[in-house]
Parts: sequence; structure tokens; C-alpha cells
Amino acid sequence: MFLDPLHTPGFKRTIFNAIVAPRPIGWISSMDAEGRVNLAPFSQFNLVSTAPPVVMFSCNTPEDRAEKDTLSNVKATGEFVANIVSWELRHAMNTTSTPCPHGEDEFVLAGLEKAESRHVRPPRVAAAPANLECKVLRIVDIEPEFPGETRSSVVFGRVVGVHLDEAYIDADGRYDTAKALPVTRLGGANYATVGEVIQMPAPFRRAGESK
Amino acid sequence: MFLDPLHTPGFKRTIFNAIVAPRPIGWISSMDAEGRVNLAPFSQFNLVSTAPPVVMFSCNTPEDRAEKDTLSNVKATGEFVANIVSWELRHAMNTTSTPCPHGEDEFVLAGLEKAESRHVRPPRVAAAPANLECKVLRIVDIEPEFPGETRSSVVFGRVVGVHLDEAYIDADGRYDTAKALPVTRLGGANYATVGEVIQMPAPFRRAGESK
Repeated sequence: MFLDPLHTPGFKRTIFNAIVAPRPIGWISSMDAEGRVNLAPFSQFNLVSTAPPVVMFSCNTPEDRAEKDTLSNVKATGEFVANIVSWELRHAMNTTSTPCPHGEDEFVLAGLEKAESRHVRPPRVAAAPANLECKVLRIVDIEPEFPGETRSSVVFGRVVGVHLDEAYIDADGRYDTAKALPVTRLGGANYATVGEVIQMPAPFRRAGESK
Repeated sequence: MFLDPLHTPGFKRTIFNAIVAPRPIGWISSMDAEGRVNLAPFSQFNLVSTAPPVVMFSCNTPEDRAEKDTLSNVKATGEFVANIVSWELRHAMNTTSTPCPHGEDEFVLAGLEKAESRHVRPPRVAAAPANLECKVLRIVDIEPEFPGETRSSVVFGRVVGVHLDEAYIDADGRYDTAKALPVTRLGGANYATVGEVIQMPAPFRRAGESK
């Protein structure tokens, strides 16, 4: 079947969000110029480069609303931490998506302990399996085209330091994703964890082989 | 433990790629100006906005190499299709990551049937559970800072049409991600499918409730 995104009821939440899935979650801690802390989850999050180590997350601002605290903070200070959400932190993560007045600290709201960062000012989620300290490289706006569409601000950050829970490092020094059991976002109110893991080495063309 | 990305052996592939995971895979079909077809998987892929419906994928170009065919094609034509990889297509997807001479058709290499797109010229993967026809909105370059780093070109595309296999649409008209069983990318040569799915409705502050 063929769908036109502009004329399909429910497209955003239960179709498009369910197709581009599962999405990793960047649980972004940030700070305003006065030192007030914010923590919020973003599933429009991924890495875009490994060397340089760069992550992105996207903040959507509907026409009739103020931009989110996270976006204002990273614009003001140029810093954030992308914390990883383990399965046992899923409810705390969801709690931090509660709409809050500016200046309210979602760490407190969700009962989360803070840990100090090394190269940036925003604190880290102490219980997270990994934290990526980031400096903003640039922010790119994707503008709305049609009535009712949002502006998206895509924040690119260079990873300047990484904190890891050693429990998730295997004997070969590799981070064991399946053991950390990250929470991912699907469509609607659905979340999932990682399922069966397999290895598929990258193929190389053998000498003399043709298609 | 704390790691400096610039001075940690294996950081890119077995740590950073394993932390920001699982990553959804955009299996990108594109066409050059002469009509030659390309198909390649990108796990630096996500949506950045649902209204407008916009996806991004990132193409990394090491200093000593030519840019990938996918990037040249979307620059030349402004069009691509993001195909979704079901679990049963995982080996075909991996085959299309084989380095090939320009102009070689990875659909043929992997034994994949093409289907015509409606609003863009590149063909779709007929067996994919979903295909997103996209028009390029803009391409943003993230420049290398240190020796040995790559340039990343982040391609943003607006979804202008969606093809879905009806087998994955439930009785309420929602796309069933877990049923489509998408392949995701972890660190190293690891891939995974979706695990346990749960529902967590977004929280709302109740009247009178304070932190």
C-alpha cells in the first residue's frame, strides 16, 4: 500500500515513528547560563561520525510553543551530556519527559543521582551505563514547509569524554551493548530492548569473483 | 572509568558504535544522473522530525578516498529511497555493503527485486517491509578537526511517499515494528533485532502535584 504522509491520519506517531525504529535514546542533560539543570530524553538521536566522534539529536519546536529548555541551554552554553538509558532506568527516563517549568530539575523529579562531568558543566546521570560529554559543533534548523509543521533544530556535538560502567566492558575491552540493555523507542508509546544478537562480518569482494 | 576518544584504541568500532546502539538501518537506494542504481546500508540514520516527515543519514568520507556513490548520487539528483531491512533481508543487506565499482548495481549483486517508486526515480527494495521515498532538503558537512578524521556529509530528506507491506499494519492502522522485525546495528560486526516491547505512556503533571 502507498501512503501520502500529508494526508494519512496518525502518520506521525503510529506509522512513521514505528517504521524508523527502534531508535536509540539520547538522555540529554544540559545547564542554562545560571547553572540550572535540565534532563530530557530524545529518540531523534544517533551518531553521525565515529572519527571525529559526533552525535546528533533533534529538538522539534511547534509554531505555537517556546523552544525546549534543552535547546535553549545548548544554544546558551554549547555543552551537553548524552546519557544512555539502561532497561532498569526506563521509568526514570520516562518521568523526565514530563513537561516542567523552566528551571525545574528533572534529576530531582525522577530521583536520579548526579555525577560530575570532567570537560563540560552539565552533570551526568550517575546510574547510566555510559555518558558522552559533548561540545556543540553546530545547530542546523530544518524549517517547516506546510501549516502545522514544526521547526526542527538538529544539534551536533563532538564527544570530548566518555564515562563507562566497567560492568559492561568485556575481556577484550569492548562495550557489551546487549548486557547494558539499552531502551529504544518505537511508535506510539512503545519501547523495546535489544533482541537476538548476531555477527555479520562486512563482506569483501574475493579476487576473481564477479557478480 | 573515563575514556578520552582521541586516545583510546578501538574506540570507534567497539566502544562508541556499541554505546550509541542499537541503530536503525537506512538501506539507501539512489541513482546517478545516467540512471545507474546504487543500494547501500547506513546505520547513521534516523528521523529528525515527524511533521515535516524528515529522515537523515550520514556518509563518511576518509581524506584519502573518493566519496561514496550514494552521496554523489543524492548530490546529483536530490532523491533517494530509505528502505527498511527486515530480519530475513539481513544477509542481502550485508551483501550490499560490499565495496563495488561505480555503476555496479547492488540489487543484482544481492539478488534483490526492484519495485518502481512513485515520486522519485530510484527504485525500491520490493521485499522490504517499508520504503520511504525522499527528496533531499539539504546536506550538511561536519568537517574533520584532527589528522585521520573523516568528513561526514549528513543528508536530510523529506519523505514524500511511503510504501508499506500491509502484513505489518495492525487492525488499528498502526505499523507493527516488532512484527516487521527490523535489523539494527550495534558495535563491531554485531547486529540485533527488537527484543521485549513495553508500553510507557508519556507522563503528565497532575494538578496540584509538586516535585
